[in-house]
Amino acid sequence: MAKGAGMINPCMATMLCFVFTDAAIEKQALGVVLKRVVGKTFNCISVDGETSTNDSVFLLASGAAQNKPFALGSGGIEKFESALFEVCKKLALEMVSDGEGASKVMQVTVKGAFSEKDASTAAGAIANSLLVKTALFGGDPNWGRIASSVGASGAQMEPHKTSVSIGGVLLFKNGEPTGKEAGAALKMKESAVEIEVELGIGKSSCTKWGCDLSHAYVDVNSKYGT
Amino acid sequence: MAKGAGMINPCMATMLCFVFTDAAIEKQALGVVLKRVVGKTFNCISVDGETSTNDSVFLLASGAAQNKPFALGSGGIEKFESALFEVCKKLALEMVSDGEGASKVMQVTVKGAFSEKDASTAAGAIANSLLVKTALFGGDPNWGRIASSVGASGAQMEPHKTSVSIGGVLLFKNGEPTGKEAGAALKMKESAVEIEVELGIGKSSCTKWGCDLSHAYVDVNSKYGT
Repeated sequence: MAKGAGMINPCMATMLCFVFTDAAIEKQALGVVLKRVVGKTFNCISVDGETSTNDSVFLLASGAAQNKPFALGSGGIEKFESALFEVCKKLALEMVSDGEGASKVMQVTVKGAFSEKDASTAAGAIANSLLVKTALFGGDPNWGRIASSVGASGAQMEPHKTSVSIGGVLLFKNGEPTGKEAGAALKMKESAVEIEVELGIGKSSCTKWGCDLSHAYVDVNSKYGT
Repeated sequence: MAKGAGMINPCMATMLCFVFTDAAIEKQALGVVLKRVVGKTFNCISVDGETSTNDSVFLLASGAAQNKPFALGSGGIEKFESALFEVCKKLALEMVSDGEGASKVMQVTVKGAFSEKDASTAAGAIANSLLVKTALFGGDPNWGRIASSVGASGAQMEPHKTSVSIGGVLLFKNGEPTGKEAGAALKMKESAVEIEVELGIGKSSCTKWGCDLSHAYVDVNSKYGT
């Protein structure tokens, strides 16, 4: 179960999520796998770049399954972590698509980054960019806004090694536009849009999820009364 | 002369500014004072948190005044720096008020911060917060959004030492609301709104300038065609 909407850019802050399992799992193992999974799911979504004051994910293992408690390094905990990842990813994506004013979601993948930190920084910069978010709302395949978000993020990049695709349509290849905007514009009419950036300088990658910035977001948050 | 509008969160990137003076000034002195002044003016404004690819400030000293060239440490360069600061601040504020879709500007001052970096981080987080920007658009004196932006920014803060004022009306004093929202709401109807946060834990301060997030920003940036 999870609840979110606005003020979502978790670093765990009004996002609430409760996950229950009947499996018996050692306490230490439960903490380690939850932190790892949350890092790749809830901490990879953003509705508005706003970290709230009380985002929380709780994972409770009741032990009702009466298995021998899973410990770190066991086959049981590995299977559990995969299942937990699928559950948390599904809840995280539902949260983004339910974001305040959201009409579309985007999946942003940055590949070929110099480091994991760079991949995360670049993906987060794209997902939180007001210009990318408004382009998503308007259905504009604006690869320039995507590339410049990466450049301004501080992540290491070399323009002539950088490529950008939207919905699988390559728009910018090794620093040169391909002129395929018309094909990408069709992909941007869909409710879920995939953005992929290949930095071509390393082996690290990161995927994050965000949503568009619409008039409804401005309405919800400007008409609110304290 | 300066030109901006959207994609403004300079770190020097589509913002262009040209400053001319007839004074004769040593090259090194010109560079030092310009960097210092730009740090307190153009690099303290944001329309949308988007750093463009080619923001630039040029300062040209023609020497037509035929003075003995000002050097660093001289009285002449000190006076020149003050004058340059006033010119750059005026241009920077005009740029924010001319921001895409902007109907109001805000001046954000963070005082009593542990370090200059903390003061800058906190002021920038407030000025770029979508929730603060939409509250400004709606005229809502939402001190909670301001305080939580500071908390999420990473700047050191202690809630019970933190105070927030809007338009000189103290809304949150040492961690407690004052209930003066009605007075502050009147101040938020003005075209320029002053937000002040006292962190109460140090001596550093920083002032930045931003604008509201309106329907017009969403229109300008979603209806743009690549």
